Amino acid sequence: MTDKVSLFGNAIVGQSGGPTAAINASLAGVIRAAQSAAEIKHIYGMKNGVEGLINGIEPIDICLTETELKLLSSTPASALGSCRHKLPDTFESDEYKKLEEIFDRYNIKYFFYIGGNDSMDTVNKLSEYCEIKGREMMVIGVPKTIDNDLTATDHTPGYGSAAKYIAVTVQEVLRDCAVYTKPAVTIIEIMGRHAGWLAASAALPGSIAGIAPDYIYLPEKPFDKDIFLDDIRSALKYHPNVVVAVSEGIHDAEGNYIGAALHKGKDVFGNVSLSGAGKALELLVKDEIGCKVRSIEINLLQRCASHAASLTDISESERVGEAAVKAALNGETAKMMCFIRSNETEYSVDIVSRDITTIANQTKTVPDSYISAGNNNITEEGIKYMLPLIQGELPILWENGIPKHFTF
Amino acid sequence: MTDKVSLFGNAIVGQSGGPTAAINASLAGVIRAAQSAAEIKHIYGMKNGVEGLINGIEPIDICLTETELKLLSSTPASALGSCRHKLPDTFESDEYKKLEEIFDRYNIKYFFYIGGNDSMDTVNKLSEYCEIKGREMMVIGVPKTIDNDLTATDHTPGYGSAAKYIAVTVQEVLRDCAVYTKPAVTIIEIMGRHAGWLAASAALPGSIAGIAPDYIYLPEKPFDKDIFLDDIRSALKYHPNVVVAVSEGIHDAEGNYIGAALHKGKDVFGNVSLSGAGKALELLVKDEIGCKVRSIEINLLQRCASHAASLTDISESERVGEAAVKAALNGETAKMMCFIRSNETEYSVDIVSRDITTIANQTKTVPDSYISAGNNNITEEGIKYMLPLIQGELPILWENGIPKHFTF
Repeated sequence: MTDKVSLFGNAIVGQSGGPTAAINASLAGVIRAAQSAAEIKHIYGMKNGVEGLINGIEPIDICLTETELKLLSSTPASALGSCRHKLPDTFESDEYKKLEEIFDRYNIKYFFYIGGNDSMDTVNKLSEYCEIKGREMMVIGVPKTIDNDLTATDHTPGYGSAAKYIAVTVQEVLRDCAVYTKPAVTIIEIMGRHAGWLAASAALPGSIAGIAPDYIYLPEKPFDKDIFLDDIRSALKYHPNVVVAVSEGIHDAEGNYIGAALHKGKDVFGNVSLSGAGKALELLVKDEIGCKVRSIEINLLQRCASHAASLTDISESERVGEAAVKAALNGETAKMMCFIRSNETEYSVDIVSRDITTIANQTKTVPDSYISAGNNNITEEGIKYMLPLIQGELPILWENGIPKHFTF
Repeated sequence: MTDKVSLFGNAIVGQSGGPTAAINASLAGVIRAAQSAAEIKHIYGMKNGVEGLINGIEPIDICLTETELKLLSSTPASALGSCRHKLPDTFESDEYKKLEEIFDRYNIKYFFYIGGNDSMDTVNKLSEYCEIKGREMMVIGVPKTIDNDLTATDHTPGYGSAAKYIAVTVQEVLRDCAVYTKPAVTIIEIMGRHAGWLAASAALPGSIAGIAPDYIYLPEKPFDKDIFLDDIRSALKYHPNVVVAVSEGIHDAEGNYIGAALHKGKDVFGNVSLSGAGKALELLVKDEIGCKVRSIEINLLQRCASHAASLTDISESERVGEAAVKAALNGETAKMMCFIRSNETEYSVDIVSRDITTIANQTKTVPDSYISAGNNNITEEGIKYMLPLIQGELPILWENGIPKHFTF
């Protein structure tokens, strides 16, 4: 760690891990703050994260107008490209030498990395490397993941937009399912392998508009297929259109994924076909209850639907990018920027930096107090946590019928 | 048929078939026009279409303000509920007696039915019944289907909004898929069993924003899996992220559905699992090419996404509902309302009525001139047809983070 307050030189920013609707807003925040910082002459963009640098892809020199930054904020996915690359544990590896060579050549004093859990591992290693080697470079992580499973931050940039899209979509599916009188079960599979934050957001239309899935099952609690079937049978007694939301990662008490456990059919080529949890439950209901049943997998639509992004999420994502630059200019390194929710009645967040060593490679799951007693729904406390995050609608620039996107 | 210009009495309106994002806009149009017609005292709504009437569900007396009508227009699915009911071929059936009893009791002189192909069969039969029995009731069909497969009309209400949602979503998925450098194939399955109109709309981002699926396969042309694999291999030579859109109804030259043909795995309960075309092609690519591959089924999200509805579609859907009432008041019966596209450079439509007998039970498929020579994409002529239909964004009333919907 350095005790200098600020270094004069250049900055570099990269995106890593799965795309979201908000990761470009954080990028816009970093670029905006870097462009207006006297200490930073150039802000460079890594193409495809550290993997791009290691593979010899030259970074690009970024200079954007405020109009372009706004457009970037409303563009889904990673405008700089992404990677899934884990830096080696040993600092003697060639990969670090390659990175050093680029940092030297481009006179990089500030390194910003926007990503999820694995990307924070990169921030952790690179800042440790700099400390050990005495390299004067501030390394800051900007969180991003629709999964909302990073510790130390109240929530993650990207989660609010994904949750809003899920709430909007689930309400529409519920309206669609309500039109017929014949008994039918609809199972909506939502992303989330280890944490049920996204599936939990399917409960939001209930609190807002009085229309909700009958049940929501999260991976935080063991899934019992007999209890599930009892739940469904019991709901069918009250109304014909039963709708259920499940996390893709639901599993039984032994940890076996429901998707893998219930559906082991082979295709005509002899491959074992591992369908998702939704499909597995569809087949279970068909077999055990016999009514009309379908499953809907929202799939990656939920992580890239910037046309329905949360204004709260996008604004906060920009702010967290800007705050990362400010922290680095203040001489901070080996940090991830975090949201602290105010205790006031009205929702607001402060942005602070926290030690990356305590954050990387940990998973934050949905707490018990957010899950109802029957393990099949979300409590009022859970709703209260999620509701502010989906508020507001990001203004979209529509061009010829579809949103206009930014590309480098 | 009657030669009276107008009858004094009441009107009844129903919705039938699969929901869309626009079917409530047509309902709003019918209600608005009926409420302002001197000849119509009450406008009643069938709950769950003719099936509801036959099952003894009393219609509801509708009286809506302009604010409520606007909200109804931006609400997805069928606010009155729906049914899939085919009236008997013999007019001596009890079902017609039950309907007559209700028409008498409620003094119904105008009957409006909003729906797709099967619903137009109901309009056809009911108007024929009235003619034979000498019942003075005007029977008018208001078209609706995201499938766009009704003959005699340039396009169907509901198609434009579904096409817009697909174009918006496909652009977002394309951005998402573009972030990695590792070869990967993404297959997007879009609704459309017999006609490829919806899958064709996946081509729109290409013309608007220069980003498009590599290939689009429609059910209008036989699907050959070897040619498909050649297409994919050839695209992978040029860029790592290959994206393909397919209609659910693609089939081989013998008419075997690809979904059913390629994937006949059994689940653990011994059921044959018929996955969709997208899943089948995913397994095919995995087996024959071996790169990373995934399939995305947009599923019923594409028919209920009123949060991204086309303003052109919703406005036209309201207009066609209003025009149906005007036609009925002019003494027309046994008609479906149709769009005629103007031949001018600027897009506009006129609404005319056409004989229902020539329309019911026919399917309009995508013409050859809209399909590229290789049978794997959409021509400029096809784009020119679709583009005006997705223009404009329906204003949405957002409440607490999600769209506010209307319910009776």
